[in-house]
Amino acid sequence: MSTTRGLEGVVATTSSVSSIIDDVLTYQGYDIDDLTDNASFEEVIYLLWNGRLPKKDELEELTKNLASDMEVPKEVFDYMKSYPIDKVHPMAALRTAVSQLALYDEEADEMTEEANRRKAIRLQARIPAIVTGFARIRNGKEPVLPKKELSFAANFLYMLNGEEPDEISETAFNKALVLHADHELNASTFTARVCVATLSDVYSGITSAIGALKGPLHGGANERVMSTLMDIGEVDNVEPYIRKALDNKEKIMGFGHRVYKNGDPRAKHLRDMSKKLTSITGESKWYDMSVKVEEMVVGEKGLLPNVDFYSASVYHSLGIDHDLFTPIFATSRVSGWLAHILEQYSDNRLIRPRAEYVGPDKQAYVPLNER
Amino acid sequence: MSTTRGLEGVVATTSSVSSIIDDVLTYQGYDIDDLTDNASFEEVIYLLWNGRLPKKDELEELTKNLASDMEVPKEVFDYMKSYPIDKVHPMAALRTAVSQLALYDEEADEMTEEANRRKAIRLQARIPAIVTGFARIRNGKEPVLPKKELSFAANFLYMLNGEEPDEISETAFNKALVLHADHELNASTFTARVCVATLSDVYSGITSAIGALKGPLHGGANERVMSTLMDIGEVDNVEPYIRKALDNKEKIMGFGHRVYKNGDPRAKHLRDMSKKLTSITGESKWYDMSVKVEEMVVGEKGLLPNVDFYSASVYHSLGIDHDLFTPIFATSRVSGWLAHILEQYSDNRLIRPRAEYVGPDKQAYVPLNER
Ligand SMILES: CC(C)(COP(=O)(O)OP(=O)(O)OC[C@H]1O[C@@H](n2cnc3c(N)ncnc32)[C@H](O)[C@@H]1OP(=O)(O)O)[C@@H](O)C(=O)NCCC(=O)NCCS
Ligand SMILES: CC(C)(COP(=O)(O)OP(=O)(O)OC[C@H]1O[C@@H](n2cnc3c(N)ncnc32)[C@H](O)[C@@H]1OP(=O)(O)O)[C@@H](O)C(=O)NCCC(=O)NCCS
Repeated sequence: MSTTRGLEGVVATTSSVSSIIDDVLTYQGYDIDDLTDNASFEEVIYLLWNGRLPKKDELEELTKNLASDMEVPKEVFDYMKSYPIDKVHPMAALRTAVSQLALYDEEADEMTEEANRRKAIRLQARIPAIVTGFARIRNGKEPVLPKKELSFAANFLYMLNGEEPDEISETAFNKALVLHADHELNASTFTARVCVATLSDVYSGITSAIGALKGPLHGGANERVMSTLMDIGEVDNVEPYIRKALDNKEKIMGFGHRVYKNGDPRAKHLRDMSKKLTSITGESKWYDMSVKVEEMVVGEKGLLPNVDFYSASVYHSLGIDHDLFTPIFATSRVSGWLAHILEQYSDNRLIRPRAEYVGPDKQAYVPLNER
Repeated sequence: MSTTRGLEGVVATTSSVSSIIDDVLTYQGYDIDDLTDNASFEEVIYLLWNGRLPKKDELEELTKNLASDMEVPKEVFDYMKSYPIDKVHPMAALRTAVSQLALYDEEADEMTEEANRRKAIRLQARIPAIVTGFARIRNGKEPVLPKKELSFAANFLYMLNGEEPDEISETAFNKALVLHADHELNASTFTARVCVATLSDVYSGITSAIGALKGPLHGGANERVMSTLMDIGEVDNVEPYIRKALDNKEKIMGFGHRVYKNGDPRAKHLRDMSKKLTSITGESKWYDMSVKVEEMVVGEKGLLPNVDFYSASVYHSLGIDHDLFTPIFATSRVSGWLAHILEQYSDNRLIRPRAEYVGPDKQAYVPLNER
């Protein structure tokens, strides 16, 4: 037995949800570049769950169901109002709230495919409502109910701000959702699949995926990219700041990837959006600093930016609190998690690898008073 | 790339926590048979977390810390009282409550080893309090506070029933806790390790492990074994019942194992306990039926009982509600989950395998009105 650290390169399952081949990312055969330029996030949800793009009536039905399922059980927000919300990370709140949703869903443990698909819609719809509801409650405001006529992207921003977004913001946010929707067997998706391969329920799977996404080596990186940019403060500080970090062998958040060695195909879209949005807000320094950081990290370490690097300045430019960046990642990625969970159920086997023992030799129990 | 379904036989990490070699299970080098006969669960917790048995003062300190950390934040039980508790599976309640614990722990996201060890004690202490508190609240009773002078095993039964257990029950329950404490890279432990390998926090790791344990192919099996026995009802019904199930290609809960092919070394201890306890309660039919089921499943399928099979009649004989069997498994296994999480942090790398793509061929986006 030999151990591949971090299961690098080990194939853990077959999947038709998405592929990374030759540094190209596709969802069900559609290149991510094509989808980012053309598709609504609702279309991508349908695509991931059904293996093809929806027809008009199918898209309408999904959109209608998403909008009508966005309302969160009152008890979840009531409870949220009672806890020390200003000390709580929104990802911990989201993990808890999603686990709570199961308590109010009479179908939570119903394992038919139809029931699991209904729960998928509920989760996809309620997660943005939870994320935005949390953001409002901690500012002493009431959650905003979604508007049925808005797109998924517009509804998120509307529920967050209580105002409908302008078209540029809606378009940018939709693109960001499309770009984050799925990513083959990333760590949170793999967590969800290992969890539900015991035939545990969808809520358990999504709760565990949120727990994994929270980590700074995964979804948690986007929030930390923004902290780095804030710490740096000015374009002129980039060089000494990054040099010091690299000298100290610190990881620069938003760089490197387990799978892509020639660059993450999602990064260029976010880079373009960052350029555009920061110039509109008149704060192009975030983009300029990012470009400088990229040049240095590429130059010094040969590490390329991943999806989390430019998304930081994009979300910042949309006026979003920095600790909501990872919950936004979850709002999108839940579509992929659900696709993978449905796929796992459809042809399940327990995921149970082995460990190579490196502990103490065999020994006999010694009574307490003889130790 | 070739896929090993369910990662069977794939080595995902090194570990010193426990080993399964030639069908012998050891915790940090100690044979499970030896520990079951001799050790307290508190000693096993210490062993799993520190790689050696505790000295007297070390054990006293751990015991003291566990007892003083058993009290659950009031808000967690307050919230529990408000939800539709009689419709909620205790594992969903436990998953939610553990995620909630993080909201009241100011150290939740503190990643030093010392802070993580403090959280480990808190989680180990609070999980039995949550499980028993849930059981009481749904029966309209108040949770019972632990007694500092009782053992971990006795405290569980005391908090559950409001009465101190007799010695036979305490001893049996302690043995059950020892037997379930760790099991190398089982599915829930692996879920926890994949989750925290993103450097997510301990609460996320334990929440996700609870989600995985809930599944019927894993910890959820013990509750289902009891349902099977209840369905069968009488010794004479075993043969037709099991024959029909096997003919229908149903899985018989509590049999089979990914790793053990010559039998699970934990089963014999639980079998002995089942025999003893069912004769004390005057309900030896549960043991007799179990033996008959075992004979048939071994005879017909060559499948041997695993840890969950005889634990069902053991817990039933201790007067425990059937849907608490899996939460009891969690009460013990959290010790192993925590050992594995601490081990993962101590030498971390993101756990991120690959998927083999089997989806649609490459295709271009087609506008909605042309589909
Ligand atoms: C994404 C990531 C977890 C991939 O991890 P991985 O495949 O296990 O890569 P490794 O940690 O083995 O990295 C290989 C080497 O590159 C270095 N490295 C990787 N990412 C780095 C980064 N962002 N900054 C500095 N060095 C980095 C590692 O330290 C390691 O160096 P070593 O060989 O001298 O020890 C890793 O690149 C990382 O931590 N990036 C920062 C967090 C982040 O942006 N995550 C979001 C991913 S979408
Ligand atoms: C534990 C378990 C998940 C191991 O799974 P695994 O290693 O993936 O084993 P597989 O599902 O590949 O089983 C191999 C064969 O034995 C059969 N089998 C395994 N366990 C069985 C059981 N309990 N009853 C009937 N048949 C069983 C499978 O159906 C399969 O048959 P096939 O080859 O004709 O399809 C599996 O044995 C099981 O589901 N047991 C019942 C649940 C249980 O007790 N879980 C607690 C484990 S501690």
